[in-house]
Amino acid sequence: MSRLESFIRRMDAQRRLLNDAMADVADKDGIVLELGLGNGRTYDHLRENMPGRDIYVFEREVRAHPGCIPPDNRLYLGHVIEQLEKAAAELGPRAILVHSDVGNGDEPASIDFGRTILAPALRPLLAPGARILSDQPVPVEGALELEKPADMDPERYYIYRYLG
Amino acid sequence: MSRLESFIRRMDAQRRLLNDAMADVADKDGIVLELGLGNGRTYDHLRENMPGRDIYVFEREVRAHPGCIPPDNRLYLGHVIEQLEKAAAELGPRAILVHSDVGNGDEPASIDFGRTILAPALRPLLAPGARILSDQPVPVEGALELEKPADMDPERYYIYRYLG
Repeated sequence: MSRLESFIRRMDAQRRLLNDAMADVADKDGIVLELGLGNGRTYDHLRENMPGRDIYVFEREVRAHPGCIPPDNRLYLGHVIEQLEKAAAELGPRAILVHSDVGNGDEPASIDFGRTILAPALRPLLAPGARILSDQPVPVEGALELEKPADMDPERYYIYRYLG
Repeated sequence: MSRLESFIRRMDAQRRLLNDAMADVADKDGIVLELGLGNGRTYDHLRENMPGRDIYVFEREVRAHPGCIPPDNRLYLGHVIEQLEKAAAELGPRAILVHSDVGNGDEPASIDFGRTILAPALRPLLAPGARILSDQPVPVEGALELEKPADMDPERYYIYRYLG
């Protein structure tokens, strides 16, 4: 499979898993966290499909398309862990959906970061029933890893439900 | 439609049009030109699906994935027009497939560049029957613009057959 094909497959999987996650939390209160703005495409997808939700974005340095930059009061700018701690103090355990795209492929350091640093930093922000979708494992204490759809090609995505 | 969705749609269209173009020239002799390497995804798609072809790549500055960098003797590095002139002298009218991705959206300057500068620079490299797929109009003299598949969403792609 060419890189063009695997890239399309990955984008398709991302869209589908985002749509599944949004449907899953549709009837639940809570805010949304987007970790890693990047070019802003998934942020745009989230805000377009959840018009009533407050979406808080965490990004070290904004490099997104000008049309995909969140308002200042929804942007936590800086190192993701420091900003998650700040957000936890300000927002409390109100996140019902988290999309994280701050990993770095299959790098051991990235997997270790997700497990030992990102997962505990995320936990104080989660509402019971929250859905987490991440490009790296984030085994939050009290969260259950969910199966991906059986007909989906294997991709580096991880889905969790936080039970509280 | 969100930017994630429109991006996926565009990538899908690109893949489909590339596959159509490769099928169209499958039984014809000739070389392939890739104008704009970018991240190297379409180059990888071309070389994977046309293992016997010589693919010449034109790029100002290589920034592709390390696995998607063409060999030195297939790379024309520098300004695309200067390099096309050099290639025309070295290779002659042997290109049976050209994929060009050096445009800049709907910018008038980009459209003007394609029409008045890129199209004439490309012509001396084309073999009769060549297929051109481009992200900007390149109305080469002697080329016929082809219709895109009727069920394809409108995208900024242009297809031509060079009649000679």
